[in-house]
Amino acid sequence: MSVQTPQSLRARLNLDVRVNTRVVKIDTAKKNVTARDESTGAEAVISYDELVLAVGAEPFKPPIPGIDRPGNFALRNLQDMDSIVGWIDKKQKALKDEKMHCIVAGAGFVGLEMVEQLLRRNMTVFVVEMMPQILGPLDPEMAAILERDLVDAGVNVVTGDAIKEIRQAVASSDPEASEVVLGSGRVLPPSQMVILGLGVRPDTKMIADAGIPCTPRGHIVVDDEMKTSVANVWAVGDAIEVNNPMLPDPEERWAVPLAGPANRQGRMVADNIFLNAKRKYKGTYGASVVRMFKNIASCVGMNEKMLKAKGLPFESVHVHPGSHAGYFPGAKAINFKLIFNPQTGQIWGAQAVGEDGVEKRIDVIATAMQGGMLVEDLANLELCYAPPVGSAKDPVNMAGMAAQNLVEGLVTQVGTGARTIQELLKDPQVKILDVRNPSEIEATGPIMEGAINIPLNDIRSRIDELDKDGKYVITCLSGQRGYYAYRTLKQKGFKHIDNLSGAYKTWGHTLTRPSDAK
Amino acid sequence: MSVQTPQSLRARLNLDVRVNTRVVKIDTAKKNVTARDESTGAEAVISYDELVLAVGAEPFKPPIPGIDRPGNFALRNLQDMDSIVGWIDKKQKALKDEKMHCIVAGAGFVGLEMVEQLLRRNMTVFVVEMMPQILGPLDPEMAAILERDLVDAGVNVVTGDAIKEIRQAVASSDPEASEVVLGSGRVLPPSQMVILGLGVRPDTKMIADAGIPCTPRGHIVVDDEMKTSVANVWAVGDAIEVNNPMLPDPEERWAVPLAGPANRQGRMVADNIFLNAKRKYKGTYGASVVRMFKNIASCVGMNEKMLKAKGLPFESVHVHPGSHAGYFPGAKAINFKLIFNPQTGQIWGAQAVGEDGVEKRIDVIATAMQGGMLVEDLANLELCYAPPVGSAKDPVNMAGMAAQNLVEGLVTQVGTGARTIQELLKDPQVKILDVRNPSEIEATGPIMEGAINIPLNDIRSRIDELDKDGKYVITCLSGQRGYYAYRTLKQKGFKHIDNLSGAYKTWGHTLTRPSDAK
Repeated sequence: MSVQTPQSLRARLNLDVRVNTRVVKIDTAKKNVTARDESTGAEAVISYDELVLAVGAEPFKPPIPGIDRPGNFALRNLQDMDSIVGWIDKKQKALKDEKMHCIVAGAGFVGLEMVEQLLRRNMTVFVVEMMPQILGPLDPEMAAILERDLVDAGVNVVTGDAIKEIRQAVASSDPEASEVVLGSGRVLPPSQMVILGLGVRPDTKMIADAGIPCTPRGHIVVDDEMKTSVANVWAVGDAIEVNNPMLPDPEERWAVPLAGPANRQGRMVADNIFLNAKRKYKGTYGASVVRMFKNIASCVGMNEKMLKAKGLPFESVHVHPGSHAGYFPGAKAINFKLIFNPQTGQIWGAQAVGEDGVEKRIDVIATAMQGGMLVEDLANLELCYAPPVGSAKDPVNMAGMAAQNLVEGLVTQVGTGARTIQELLKDPQVKILDVRNPSEIEATGPIMEGAINIPLNDIRSRIDELDKDGKYVITCLSGQRGYYAYRTLKQKGFKHIDNLSGAYKTWGHTLTRPSDAK
Repeated sequence: MSVQTPQSLRARLNLDVRVNTRVVKIDTAKKNVTARDESTGAEAVISYDELVLAVGAEPFKPPIPGIDRPGNFALRNLQDMDSIVGWIDKKQKALKDEKMHCIVAGAGFVGLEMVEQLLRRNMTVFVVEMMPQILGPLDPEMAAILERDLVDAGVNVVTGDAIKEIRQAVASSDPEASEVVLGSGRVLPPSQMVILGLGVRPDTKMIADAGIPCTPRGHIVVDDEMKTSVANVWAVGDAIEVNNPMLPDPEERWAVPLAGPANRQGRMVADNIFLNAKRKYKGTYGASVVRMFKNIASCVGMNEKMLKAKGLPFESVHVHPGSHAGYFPGAKAINFKLIFNPQTGQIWGAQAVGEDGVEKRIDVIATAMQGGMLVEDLANLELCYAPPVGSAKDPVNMAGMAAQNLVEGLVTQVGTGARTIQELLKDPQVKILDVRNPSEIEATGPIMEGAINIPLNDIRSRIDELDKDGKYVITCLSGQRGYYAYRTLKQKGFKHIDNLSGAYKTWGHTLTRPSDAK
């Protein structure tokens, strides 16, 4: 169902909408475009006073052998979806009781949403992702939560490898069946369908040919009012680069293909054209969310990978609060990560994964970032609380408080941020001090072989068992009791201690001594 | 289950916690308190370096005849709840198959949460509220949505009337049964229980007697660091007044008994005492939420009633978006109201009612208010979007855009705000122009008798049916099509037109001409 039709838009807003019609040429000197009716081939020249380029972006098709084989699909619009559904119906009918196989190339938002739907259609699914993790906007330890979901659901996840060739599967009697060859040389079992979820690229050759400046990657260059450098030509949406308001350099740009920013850019350009409003776009923060099975993953801003690449100072805290007060039934755990500049308190970004209340917290962080708030403002933020929907200390507050403690020097930590636990463990003198209760450790197993255990409530009475000059990384279940233990030991004169951000809930059994690694 | 015990807090933090012990006297000159053990009656004098008053507030018990009758309960703590549950068990057992009756005095957060639980216990429930509406933090048209829920659930709702007397019910064989007499003279049927949900009052007589300044209503006076004017004495929580950061006068204060602010004030005072951090409390915005049956109601900031009382300029927009994209299954309608200063764009507050995604949007508004953002910032706000959890234009964006249109003069409106529809309808020349489709009007009935109907898409072709100098209030289902019609007519030279904020979804069939009112 379409929201509007050409007829309704004509009646309502006096618009002349031509569907199934492609602009094939722009003449910015004569101020006209040549439009081709895709069904008849007839071309018409249409003049303009102002031209808005809202051409979007196309799914990326890598130039590899076999990319145009039957059964390969990308997903941009409803027609693509109809084609995919039709193909599945046809193949499943032919396969009868045999399970259809599908390869999804790319484990980003679109790829993962497809995986869920393919499983619902009772297929065997492979996901192939070039990066060493799925869902690139998240940092690895956050993406790992979703990867476990995928594996639990029976999906074959291949990371750190890419599709190199798609060729006819000789082992199959179906000439349309494909065999996917990976960069590593691995050959995946024959499949009846390949879905390309490798991100999007703007398709702007015709626009660049018209003399409208585009970046090397093909994004149309616009200023903050969404004007190109060519008079009376504007551009919006997935085809443009926008400013990254988180970076110190106001000229630094990035491309963020999201529906929300595109919508607001459209409204802004209309105001700038019709009202001469001179509104300026303030940049895109990359607030995004995806639901996969029962989990929702959401993030905003810059992740550690981007910050490392830019050489910017950052620190991260991990907290694991409930979606609402724990004593009210139905609370779900949220894995929450806040990334910030430890020198200034500026919020770089946040990531969260869980079953409930996830994107709500990211929306709050996104709003705080747009309001120029700092981590201490998150600690003090007033949010709604009632037991069925929140906590008196909201997850956002908890993360803000943990970050503020770091910024103000009340605690030092290791984790994924500036000082990684993996790096610290290279020092054989560093000991892990787990302050959980023995029953908890028995239930989960130790966080690492050789970890010392003194429960938090015994730290004061058993402090003599510890060496004041020793190096300790303190851990517990989520990081909070570790913080208390840290403060107690610090006040008793311990100098070489750190709290482990996120503790067992973030790290599970992934910690190893370099010497342990096989 | 308690989160901590005196023993665990002693072990963990070396705290000396004395439960069941009441401070009966404070000597600020000698810097000590007298504490009485409530079980033994023994008193002890305890000296302090710093004294933090976190005494909370008590449920208000009005001084009316019969207030201490058996079966009257207020609800502050778990012991109260145990007493209530015990009483219900006893009475229901005695009543056998007969339904137990309960009167809830006060339709605020606590009263309404009690109503839901009492219905689950299979009682006949009356709610008596002195104000002409339930849930005072909301404006009347928003509270009306929840009031319909209550009535639909079989609750007897009495507004604009208050409990004057509680007396023995002579018609009952149970001498503990009560008869509630209202201010209007109405006598409610005999009931076995009366729950007092009339708000809270600080119980600070002992504190004022110690020379620590309190307001006439009993709130402890503190500065922004939570210090009283007495050396080494601090106060936090429901017993204090805090600044209202929304008002122009930074000295203006209000009392907002909420758990979130109390929590953060506690942390702040600890930092100010132990770290000499000199943190300043930035005020309370009143972000709150309550779940009642399937609906969630949430609000933040100042409502129209408060703004009228203060004589501050305000305007309100009503929007009715879905909790997420309409084409994805399971979207629920949100009734959303944004209140703002039309001269400056400052956000005064917001209110929302619906089944899903309600407090999420209020949390975003609350964050925006704390970040000093304006309504145009809400229009431009970047929030997470994926079809299962949001919309490319989020409800917050929609409300911000509607408000921005008003601030910038693109539209004039009537509604609940500066210019009310009720006031305008006193002018007999004002006509209602409904731009919905005839089938929609047939389904709901007209918004008001005598309303003209021209569907939006016919406005341009049927404009001659309208009088360019006539006075029209334009309405549709939610207000959006009305806006389009307004803009079309405005461009065609119509001068005396207004859009109806919220349209049919806000007003239903409540509109009447003064002459129609019986």
